[in-house]
Amino acid sequence: MFRPRYFIPALTSLALLACSQATPGPCPPQAAPVDSSAKIVEAVPAPLPTVELSLWQDGATRKALEDFVKKVTTEGSPDFVPVAERIAVFDNDGTLWSEQPMYVQLAFALQRVKELAPQHPEWAKKPAFKAALDDDFKALAATGTPGLLEIIGATLGNNTAEEFEKIASDWLKTAQHPKYQRPYTELTYAPMVELLEFLRAHDFKTFIVSGGGIAFMRPMTESAYGIPPEQVIGSRMKVSYKDGAIHREGKFDFLDDGPGKPVAIYEQIGRRPILAGGNSDGDFPMLEWTLRQDRPHLALVVHHTDAERETAYDRESHIGKLDKALDAATAEDAQDKGWVVVDMKNDWKKVFAFEEDGQTPEPAPAQ
Amino acid sequence: MFRPRYFIPALTSLALLACSQATPGPCPPQAAPVDSSAKIVEAVPAPLPTVELSLWQDGATRKALEDFVKKVTTEGSPDFVPVAERIAVFDNDGTLWSEQPMYVQLAFALQRVKELAPQHPEWAKKPAFKAALDDDFKALAATGTPGLLEIIGATLGNNTAEEFEKIASDWLKTAQHPKYQRPYTELTYAPMVELLEFLRAHDFKTFIVSGGGIAFMRPMTESAYGIPPEQVIGSRMKVSYKDGAIHREGKFDFLDDGPGKPVAIYEQIGRRPILAGGNSDGDFPMLEWTLRQDRPHLALVVHHTDAERETAYDRESHIGKLDKALDAATAEDAQDKGWVVVDMKNDWKKVFAFEEDGQTPEPAPAQ
Repeated sequence: MFRPRYFIPALTSLALLACSQATPGPCPPQAAPVDSSAKIVEAVPAPLPTVELSLWQDGATRKALEDFVKKVTTEGSPDFVPVAERIAVFDNDGTLWSEQPMYVQLAFALQRVKELAPQHPEWAKKPAFKAALDDDFKALAATGTPGLLEIIGATLGNNTAEEFEKIASDWLKTAQHPKYQRPYTELTYAPMVELLEFLRAHDFKTFIVSGGGIAFMRPMTESAYGIPPEQVIGSRMKVSYKDGAIHREGKFDFLDDGPGKPVAIYEQIGRRPILAGGNSDGDFPMLEWTLRQDRPHLALVVHHTDAERETAYDRESHIGKLDKALDAATAEDAQDKGWVVVDMKNDWKKVFAFEEDGQTPEPAPAQ
Repeated sequence: MFRPRYFIPALTSLALLACSQATPGPCPPQAAPVDSSAKIVEAVPAPLPTVELSLWQDGATRKALEDFVKKVTTEGSPDFVPVAERIAVFDNDGTLWSEQPMYVQLAFALQRVKELAPQHPEWAKKPAFKAALDDDFKALAATGTPGLLEIIGATLGNNTAEEFEKIASDWLKTAQHPKYQRPYTELTYAPMVELLEFLRAHDFKTFIVSGGGIAFMRPMTESAYGIPPEQVIGSRMKVSYKDGAIHREGKFDFLDDGPGKPVAIYEQIGRRPILAGGNSDGDFPMLEWTLRQDRPHLALVVHHTDAERETAYDRESHIGKLDKALDAATAEDAQDKGWVVVDMKNDWKKVFAFEEDGQTPEPAPAQ
């Protein structure tokens, strides 16, 4: 009904325009449509975005990503995908930032166990909490997912939305990774952050779809990845509304992992992605769902092969186990099906932004 | 890390730029930031968007909307709200399109009952289905929300995501409103569609938050309202993922009404809106939550006062009951709190886009 158009008086030899910084994606690069009813002498096409995959080694992986983006964005190509359908989804832990030696959110919850324990004498009798208080990670692991969810619920819940946002933000500002002695927010993978920007420069809408808690991630995704809260999907705590406030009830309601990922994408995005990235078997259903469609599709698997700059792990790891998805992504027909495996050691010029010359610096002394 | 900028060579006297048509909001209207390191002779400010509330009578309601948008978008104003936080949410049934004589989705489900009945002899013994088959709306109403949800689940579920999308799209293309003899998609309120565009022209991100089924709405929200699927929140059916497909299980999982609305906004958007619009008590928690914050806020209540052009109803209506929220929105201190009531009869120049001269044409003969 209304189609706002912007008339840009061209007064000088060069004019610099930038879209809103709060908008994750830049303006689309297509040539500006011309309204023939207006007194236009000549339309000025916008140049192509200049974001490149500069942190990716020149090789098959980088080429597969570039080729995919090129074919879905080339108008007239049989593989062209309209802007609105360029949905790309990414797991977070182990795909966009480090998940070793443990999920960041778990490190947060374990610290909260110790902080809150004086108010909860009953925890001493609960196996998962006792293990956490004793730093007995073997006993903690033995309590399995139910034990972890119980700890996360009890330590990160029982507050309002605003209270938790402050607790999570404050922790992320001060906590440090045990190995690198840096804030966890610096443990994002620089080539993946670059890939997100590359995709957005080609009018993809980027989403996070993580097993991590949705409210834990949201305070950091905009600054770390350029992804706003409403494009973050994650596990959810049971919440309720009362008297003007959202109350987080301390119990898990939805686990955004395995088959939960396509379910959550269907519920929150309502479209099937054409590109998905993950690093573990928990991402397999999301990757498989992305591949099983007629439109162009690509499933990216981040394979942790770099023992020097990060941690090498896959089939036997308790965290980020990559077995079934690695079989699928390396099968003989995998490339034809749309699988692309990132070999972190060989495909990435650097892992973290803070590296110099492709080497992880020695950890700084503890403060 | 990468901040793509567009250098626009200004070759001629006027250049016309438009953002992607698939992006619901236009480029932000602010003056273009100037990069002093570039060789810029003079920056060219973009003019303000030209979308106006032309379908709204000149009066207090229109002024309240304009004043609110002006104050939150004026940089330097104490009420300025950054672009990323300009979240506006709207109920759908009765707020953006007609919900009389019954919810559009219910009309759809009742037609499906008749179509599918031959395959379901057991329905004859179920009160809600029997009432639907007999066109006995009084008996149907007596089965209450559980009866309606049972019908909607059974008739709109038990299919895959893609199957249902086609069923819903096909129905919306052919079904007609019983009074106006027009497709339901023409029963959107033109001034509200205009308000959505007005807000987006000022860099609001607009969302639907409806009691209607999320998958039923998504096929029509982009074309009807300029709202993409990922900005639609609604009631959800239980779904599961298996073998590359999303299966809709035929049972309700989440009712996005009453206190469910702020809960769903928290889960799917992750920010508190600064503007919310609704028309019934089911919207009250969402409106109240929007008003209870320190940032600027506005709660819009669409009051169905127009018996001639639409239907007049409020406190006693079974559909779209507006009682508690009307009390709150018309209380002595309501204006100070941020309530704005739309009097459809007096505030809107037209209700539907197809009207001529502000009058609803006589219904066309049935075909």
